[in-house]
Amino acid sequence: MQKRSEETHTQILESAHLLFSQAGYEAASVADICQEAGVSKGAFYHHFPTKQAVFLELLEGWLVELERGFAILQEESETVPQAIDAMASIAGQLLEEMNGNLSLLPEFWIQAQRDPQVWQAARSPYQRYQRFFSTLIHKGIQDGALAQVDSDLAARSLVSLALGLLMQATFDPHGADWGKETQRSIHLFINALRVSSQ
Amino acid sequence: MQKRSEETHTQILESAHLLFSQAGYEAASVADICQEAGVSKGAFYHHFPTKQAVFLELLEGWLVELERGFAILQEESETVPQAIDAMASIAGQLLEEMNGNLSLLPEFWIQAQRDPQVWQAARSPYQRYQRFFSTLIHKGIQDGALAQVDSDLAARSLVSLALGLLMQATFDPHGADWGKETQRSIHLFINALRVSSQ
Repeated sequence: MQKRSEETHTQILESAHLLFSQAGYEAASVADICQEAGVSKGAFYHHFPTKQAVFLELLEGWLVELERGFAILQEESETVPQAIDAMASIAGQLLEEMNGNLSLLPEFWIQAQRDPQVWQAARSPYQRYQRFFSTLIHKGIQDGALAQVDSDLAARSLVSLALGLLMQATFDPHGADWGKETQRSIHLFINALRVSSQ
Repeated sequence: MQKRSEETHTQILESAHLLFSQAGYEAASVADICQEAGVSKGAFYHHFPTKQAVFLELLEGWLVELERGFAILQEESETVPQAIDAMASIAGQLLEEMNGNLSLLPEFWIQAQRDPQVWQAARSPYQRYQRFFSTLIHKGIQDGALAQVDSDLAARSLVSLALGLLMQATFDPHGADWGKETQRSIHLFINALRVSSQ
């Protein structure tokens, strides 16, 4: 991709993110995104087949950013429970940054049920997270920091806990400070799995 | 309500449950439900303003049944961790029984975002569960069975864990035996909160 084309691509993504957050996914039209980005409809459709494709790329971007953050925190943390606490903290921050875009999720979930391509886009990062945390928890057990638990089960529980909190943040955005609740819940969970945490 | 009218009401609910499970919520029309139930459209609309109202009443029925089950298990169990394990077991069973109706949930969630009445129907049982488990966990701490944790936080985590599993069961019904995973995850969580569980 040439430099100019790359800039257009990024500009469309950033404008879409802004409008989705402000007006919501439904209300923000391709025309609105083009106007905000200062590009023609032709240029838009050269980069993205649909508005949904823009959303999928934004989602992929958040998930890749989160995974990169997780990898750095794993390197930097002394113990696995500390690493998971730090990961919960950046996941909580992301949840707060995504605020406004969260209302897209149910629409996205319905699309995922109907469209195998969207389903795959949702499923692969989820499976990567599952494997990542299973490996991490396994390491924590070997290091003697975590109790002898089934690491696949513990990873599934951790991911389920995060998904449950994400769901509540989506449906009841003002019901709690979800970023903070995510941090606190995951801390409770991983602390309970520590050896001699009692 | 007269006996005959009650029977019609129940018949519509049962027929709707059957058709939603078999054909899915979208595919099952009011006409289909009437035919299955052997009632006229007039009778249907005498009992329910919309197909969605039927679904809301089914949902309320499942949730009330679950809460009744929880109350019985609380009475019958010797300790709070045992009670929560037993509750996870019936929640897992319900998850398996709801199979087929689960695909309704995302549609329902979108409705909940748009329609305050549906939102309230979803929110009140969720808040009741939250309070119920907070009280139960608090009792477990006082009894000395559970570690000294924030019972509101632990209850929120427990409900979040269950919601996350429900979400995965909805989107990836064949990805795992979700009833069993619900039991195992909740057991892991509550066991980790036990005093001297290590």
